[in-house]
Amino acid sequence: MRIAPSILAADFADLSGEVEAVDSVELLHLDVMDGHFVPNISFGPPVIESLRSRTDVYFDTHLMIEQPERYVDTFEAAGADRLTVHAEACEDTAAVVDQIHDAGLDAGVAINPDTPVETIEPLLEDIDLALVMTVQPGFGGQSFMHKTVEKVEKIAAISDVEIEVDGGVDAETGPQCAKAGADTFVIGSSLFGRDDASAALSELRAAIGIDAE
Amino acid sequence: MRIAPSILAADFADLSGEVEAVDSVELLHLDVMDGHFVPNISFGPPVIESLRSRTDVYFDTHLMIEQPERYVDTFEAAGADRLTVHAEACEDTAAVVDQIHDAGLDAGVAINPDTPVETIEPLLEDIDLALVMTVQPGFGGQSFMHKTVEKVEKIAAISDVEIEVDGGVDAETGPQCAKAGADTFVIGSSLFGRDDASAALSELRAAIGIDAE
Repeated sequence: MRIAPSILAADFADLSGEVEAVDSVELLHLDVMDGHFVPNISFGPPVIESLRSRTDVYFDTHLMIEQPERYVDTFEAAGADRLTVHAEACEDTAAVVDQIHDAGLDAGVAINPDTPVETIEPLLEDIDLALVMTVQPGFGGQSFMHKTVEKVEKIAAISDVEIEVDGGVDAETGPQCAKAGADTFVIGSSLFGRDDASAALSELRAAIGIDAE
Repeated sequence: MRIAPSILAADFADLSGEVEAVDSVELLHLDVMDGHFVPNISFGPPVIESLRSRTDVYFDTHLMIEQPERYVDTFEAAGADRLTVHAEACEDTAAVVDQIHDAGLDAGVAINPDTPVETIEPLLEDIDLALVMTVQPGFGGQSFMHKTVEKVEKIAAISDVEIEVDGGVDAETGPQCAKAGADTFVIGSSLFGRDDASAALSELRAAIGIDAE
């Protein structure tokens, strides 16, 4: 199990410093939003490319964008390690997964709270990650949706794929997801923006039951 | 006349440092791209908001996005000073200009190389800026399109509105735009990424004929 801090809540004027502050993490979660698949516009390849030159950490790139197939090569060139696309944003998700693998990257598929596990079930053998959104993507300050934990359980029961949860994950909801079978925990506002980011990360690890390294 | 450095070519891992390096500028040009109006996704409100906390410089925000009317309040809250929308992206450009003014911001309207001046002529009395794109927006490494200089001349002949040129502006093309009546010159890759950004800025000022302060 591991924590994936999202840089969405970070200080974008000093990303380099922010990333240093959480340098013990195994992966960084990069929330790309286009203002169409989700209401917000966050950042895209130029930001990822700049950040790539400063760190070797695994870039867990979550594409909350329409027609993600148009951007696979661009994000590969920018330095992404994994591209996670939304099942809701793809006409042919299996084809996009193949495209991501052909680009030499790990491929993830995300599902929104209202999208059933059945939608991605045929893909579970081919993908490297199933991302279960535990809030609606693209809106801040939402509460964790407990019904989504069942989806984590369902995926864990039928597959060995890595399962990531994203949205409202904290010291209370994280352990519930872990028990259901989640492997990777996206953490946003509860980490960055704190003076003691490193200590906060340790607390979360302990709450979820991740051993210190 | 003044220079508006675009941060698009800056190091996004150290925006704070990049902005300090060009601290003599009167305004910063912020290229927001949504991957729909233009092919690229650049950055949005979270980046602008973080940068706002580091500098008081005027944020000249160029919205290369569809349906910009959905984002006026968000960009105002993020700290934009001027919002420039594309005539090609608005169903009712005059209404969007009113919306921007109602939000307390300066309003600009941009036109692509193939959009005639006539499209924005009825708006010139109401807007604070006419942005003449001198390349197709959203694609890097293009050459300055000389036919666009005539549009600068045309606007300058019928209006006192501030005229900004954006794309391929350098020590050769800048003076041509200045002669045609341009007031504000967006500079991208020719400034950031150089060790001597401050000196490069001075050179450009001199070439265009802007007096040192």
